[in-house]
Amino acid sequence: MDHSNNFLRGIINDVKGRALCYRQDWEVGLRTGISILAPTMYIFFASALPVIAFGEQLSRSTDGALSTVETLASTAICGILHSVLGGQPMLIVGVAEPTVIMYTYLYNFAKERKDLGERLYLAWAGWVCIWTAIMLVLLAIFNASAIISRFTRVAGELFGMLITLLFFQEAIRACFNLAHGLISEFEVPEGEDHTGPIYQFQWLYTNGLLGIIFTTGLLFTALKSRGARAWRYGTGALRGFIADYGVPLMVVVWTAMSYALPSQVPSGVPRRLFSPLPWEPKSLEHWSVAKGLFSVPPLYIFAAIIPALMVAGLYFFDHSVASQLAQQKEFNLKNPSAYHYDILVLGFMVLACGLIGIPPANGVLPQSPMHTKSLAVLKRQIIRKKMVESAKEGIRKQASSSEIYGKMQEVFEKMDKGHTTISIDKELKNLKDAVMNDGPRGQDSKVQFDPEKHIDAHLPVRVNEQRVTNLLQSLLVGACVGAMPVIKKIPTSVLWGYFAYMAVDSLPGNQFWERTLLMFISPGRRFKVLDGTHASFVESVPFKQIAVFTIFQIVYLLVCFGVTWIPIAGILFPLPFFLLITIRQHVLPKFFHPHHLQELDAAEYDEIVRAPRHGRSLSFAEGEGSPTENDDNQIDVCDAEILDELTTHRGELKHRAMSFKEERSQVTILKWNAFSIKRRNRGCPCLSSLINF
Amino acid sequence: MDHSNNFLRGIINDVKGRALCYRQDWEVGLRTGISILAPTMYIFFASALPVIAFGEQLSRSTDGALSTVETLASTAICGILHSVLGGQPMLIVGVAEPTVIMYTYLYNFAKERKDLGERLYLAWAGWVCIWTAIMLVLLAIFNASAIISRFTRVAGELFGMLITLLFFQEAIRACFNLAHGLISEFEVPEGEDHTGPIYQFQWLYTNGLLGIIFTTGLLFTALKSRGARAWRYGTGALRGFIADYGVPLMVVVWTAMSYALPSQVPSGVPRRLFSPLPWEPKSLEHWSVAKGLFSVPPLYIFAAIIPALMVAGLYFFDHSVASQLAQQKEFNLKNPSAYHYDILVLGFMVLACGLIGIPPANGVLPQSPMHTKSLAVLKRQIIRKKMVESAKEGIRKQASSSEIYGKMQEVFEKMDKGHTTISIDKELKNLKDAVMNDGPRGQDSKVQFDPEKHIDAHLPVRVNEQRVTNLLQSLLVGACVGAMPVIKKIPTSVLWGYFAYMAVDSLPGNQFWERTLLMFISPGRRFKVLDGTHASFVESVPFKQIAVFTIFQIVYLLVCFGVTWIPIAGILFPLPFFLLITIRQHVLPKFFHPHHLQELDAAEYDEIVRAPRHGRSLSFAEGEGSPTENDDNQIDVCDAEILDELTTHRGELKHRAMSFKEERSQVTILKWNAFSIKRRNRGCPCLSSLINF
Repeated sequence: MDHSNNFLRGIINDVKGRALCYRQDWEVGLRTGISILAPTMYIFFASALPVIAFGEQLSRSTDGALSTVETLASTAICGILHSVLGGQPMLIVGVAEPTVIMYTYLYNFAKERKDLGERLYLAWAGWVCIWTAIMLVLLAIFNASAIISRFTRVAGELFGMLITLLFFQEAIRACFNLAHGLISEFEVPEGEDHTGPIYQFQWLYTNGLLGIIFTTGLLFTALKSRGARAWRYGTGALRGFIADYGVPLMVVVWTAMSYALPSQVPSGVPRRLFSPLPWEPKSLEHWSVAKGLFSVPPLYIFAAIIPALMVAGLYFFDHSVASQLAQQKEFNLKNPSAYHYDILVLGFMVLACGLIGIPPANGVLPQSPMHTKSLAVLKRQIIRKKMVESAKEGIRKQASSSEIYGKMQEVFEKMDKGHTTISIDKELKNLKDAVMNDGPRGQDSKVQFDPEKHIDAHLPVRVNEQRVTNLLQSLLVGACVGAMPVIKKIPTSVLWGYFAYMAVDSLPGNQFWERTLLMFISPGRRFKVLDGTHASFVESVPFKQIAVFTIFQIVYLLVCFGVTWIPIAGILFPLPFFLLITIRQHVLPKFFHPHHLQELDAAEYDEIVRAPRHGRSLSFAEGEGSPTENDDNQIDVCDAEILDELTTHRGELKHRAMSFKEERSQVTILKWNAFSIKRRNRGCPCLSSLINF
Repeated sequence: MDHSNNFLRGIINDVKGRALCYRQDWEVGLRTGISILAPTMYIFFASALPVIAFGEQLSRSTDGALSTVETLASTAICGILHSVLGGQPMLIVGVAEPTVIMYTYLYNFAKERKDLGERLYLAWAGWVCIWTAIMLVLLAIFNASAIISRFTRVAGELFGMLITLLFFQEAIRACFNLAHGLISEFEVPEGEDHTGPIYQFQWLYTNGLLGIIFTTGLLFTALKSRGARAWRYGTGALRGFIADYGVPLMVVVWTAMSYALPSQVPSGVPRRLFSPLPWEPKSLEHWSVAKGLFSVPPLYIFAAIIPALMVAGLYFFDHSVASQLAQQKEFNLKNPSAYHYDILVLGFMVLACGLIGIPPANGVLPQSPMHTKSLAVLKRQIIRKKMVESAKEGIRKQASSSEIYGKMQEVFEKMDKGHTTISIDKELKNLKDAVMNDGPRGQDSKVQFDPEKHIDAHLPVRVNEQRVTNLLQSLLVGACVGAMPVIKKIPTSVLWGYFAYMAVDSLPGNQFWERTLLMFISPGRRFKVLDGTHASFVESVPFKQIAVFTIFQIVYLLVCFGVTWIPIAGILFPLPFFLLITIRQHVLPKFFHPHHLQELDAAEYDEIVRAPRHGRSLSFAEGEGSPTENDDNQIDVCDAEILDELTTHRGELKHRAMSFKEERSQVTILKWNAFSIKRRNRGCPCLSSLINF
């Protein structure tokens, strides 16, 4: 990202970098075998569910001109294109809320012009895509990605909060189109026959009450299942399954319950998703939208530049940030980034979608960092297994410590291609020490080498970087288009609950939200914040500064939200966010101390944890015939649980410190090796003990 | 309680003791003035709501023979009698679940005998009361209260869990009578005309769905409001109000919402409480039940001895334990106990209730300890105010430290009559030191005497012991009989929610329940228990012993629960509990190490807290123009909040230790003075810092 002035240089570098590992990207994935399916399914569900929800939202906003079929198709097509042709295969693309909002404005605009109308809506949207594509290509060519560091937390979180507000609005009732949200369940849908039996008060009311039950039911069960990995009860595998697949599972459960109603309830109560099937004429006419492009009056072709500017800005922003979070430095990725080239590819994907009349997809959060995270867990499992095997083999053959270590390093190097030996030496130093330590002192040494324990403890972070998961999950999303008859069985009220879930789920870890809550805590109760784990700005910035900064953000958010309500000019809603980047650079520094501003708008999420209980005796495990430390006494915290606790819901990794004063010695999760050894030592099995390393 | 062999001795001692302070019991209450209304209203709501719920339960179980009118009347009459004639005025009486269960069995038995039938049900129940009264009087005369120490935790908690199960059953669906619980909302009530419009499927179903919404709505909002005092948001007064009155408030809110339904919903949906009004003939015929006593066939008069044995045992047990928890030693009550005499009074109350055909009331949990707790808070406020006034007066007059202290001690003694000077000196020692400390060193002393701060810190615990609150709250319960037309507006589904709330709310702090949960935690996750605040047995008893003990209790509980399902012999359900006292004394010691048994069946609730965060910097309060410590920086934790955290939901005070190993130096809440000073010192404002004192 240091080539801001050299025409095309960014793209060329990116292509060169990725070309070197392109073949390997496929080989690694294919060699992984069946276990590649775990992260694939995980990302598929995380990706497909919102796309289905956004499809229904779009369908209601555009009177069915676009629906779930199109959002799924776009996500699948762009996903396949990106996984094959894209630069960074960790990046996941999908149709997201900003796209849906944009396409709603475009529809409302087109519908009202008699020389466009619903007939030419998609063709005109096609022109918006064409202009957007041109702008994205220009941004890529002129290395604009070099400026993504200017998209600071303040703009990102404000945008996140706007999306949250829009989700809530969708869950309860949207402002333009009355067919959205829980309240609509009590009303006769537009365009339906008011005299139909299910639209008489009794059944309308029953439909509404069922709506309340399904919406709140889904919201609460989904939120609960999200945190399953930290539960006390159940086996690790069960908790992991619920945490990973709980939300889609709850959609299935509540849908099943909607079929368990008594038979006297007429069909049509509760209401279910409405979408034409992909093989019906309504869906098929899209594919020829390109033929209508030149039926659009020239004036509108050029007017399309204005929305295109907004879309291009949004996509550039979203795509880059999603890519950035998928490649956070703690993930320790080995293959190079490709920000510039990916924007170029995005331009072509937007063009393709525009020409076939479907809404385009772009990089999405939190799915992209979730993808990297799941692949890190997978890779770890694979390397660990091979190294333990090799070490045990060595021990069986009574090889010397240095021979054992040599074999293990060899295995590691083989698994971790494209990496220089020097840095491996450095990364494996702790493991080497653990193995060698045993050598001279032999069997009597207290710290005897235990392959499983020591490898767990000292294995550095590696991600299974490849393109297969991304391709497979995109193909599965594509297969959902064929599964539309099943998807249509989901009650709409379950979907409103899902929107509410997405809204609530996006709040924790958003520092803007956390600061807003702080405003409502009376001074005498603030110790409760400090007593728990909290963001570091709480200790480093005076409260008045926090308050002024937050109030500024709240006012700004309300302005942004107000803009989305303006009938046609609302399409300019991304403008305040672009403006915010300038405000952040030139206006805010005049009102805030640079240090405070840096804390409140920090690039990284720093938090300070509560102290663990020291010197705990695990005595209630004693007396069970296991006086010595054995596997039963091991503490059961899996890697994914540590990751969960240290990742915001947006996918950002948190940096932890034990206390503000301890020189803020920060630690990040991906030193989970540090954790692993500790938790076997019984002394301090708390996450926070990470700090000691 | 050391007079087990002297006939009448217990009662005589009790009467002597209470007679000395009887006049004062009234004077103190009357002198307190208007602020006495706060604890009165608090206890009134805590007392009236369950009585209303049990009344509706009883009404459905006895086909309306007894209803809310009778349970309210009994609670009011017995409350008035006890507050005027009773021994310990802290004890609160009311109609409770065991009484309702007993009266249900009596009704089911009487209904089936043609020579009793519904007509002589109340007269026969009157005979049960007569026998019960005789037995209670005998128990009082022979000083049986001396054995209440044998009612250990194991029996008490098992009985508590049985009641919890019965509450759940009531909330969902009772086993004998189908007219109870949420499921009944979907069905046509027995005896109603099936052809009525509101009993057609559509409205039945609507009624059921509304039932689900009201029941779960009340359950969740009531549970949330219960913990309001620990919230981060809102002022202390608001949080306190919600915590104290949240549950009745939620009943009102959900009842109001049931009136906000659209007008098209027919009246009768949702269903509301059913009860005859107190001035209707059905209610009036009770008062002459005594006239029918001798219409009962002699066989049944003597058969009534069997249920009477059960009722007497239950009441003796419940009344004594409620009284005991209202007088826990940490409350530091000044007036003597009256266990023996109170059982005698209970005998006469049972007799009176039996003769006028209403179910008797007995001492209730958790209302009795709640009563003492609220009076401790009140007393503290009053003493504190007077002492601060006196100290400020002294400072204004530039009196010497010893003069100021002298005045303060004088005020304290005046407020705290009937107490020897020696122990006051001891109790006020810390305060004296704080005042005197200032003297010699004068204004320059760092620890300058600050009346408010130091009095808060060193004021010993005092309870406003009087009879006025108990009398007033009983009168208010009596007034509820007149408010029946309003009470009848509560939807039945709100009541099922309230039963579910009572069930869930009774679980935390029940060690049997906590141990049962522990069974389901896999060994690798047990560190989570140790990480949080936990009962001390977790660290002192081997897990296998905990498991065996708990499984024994679970099996025993299931047997007891099974007994309640037996149609007529179910009336013997208290028998297993009486048996358990013997099992505890003679059988359990053969299977468990005495130390372990003592830990698992401890008289006191010992827990070990999580370590607080040491050396916390409260820096985010800095830079606000308040570099010195001032009131803004004070931590806002009110006395009631500390009490909340350290009281189980049954009203039992918890004993806290910081770590098992630190010689289990335990602390109890009522050293809240220790807390007060600490929390102004900024260093360690956590509750757990209590340990340092």
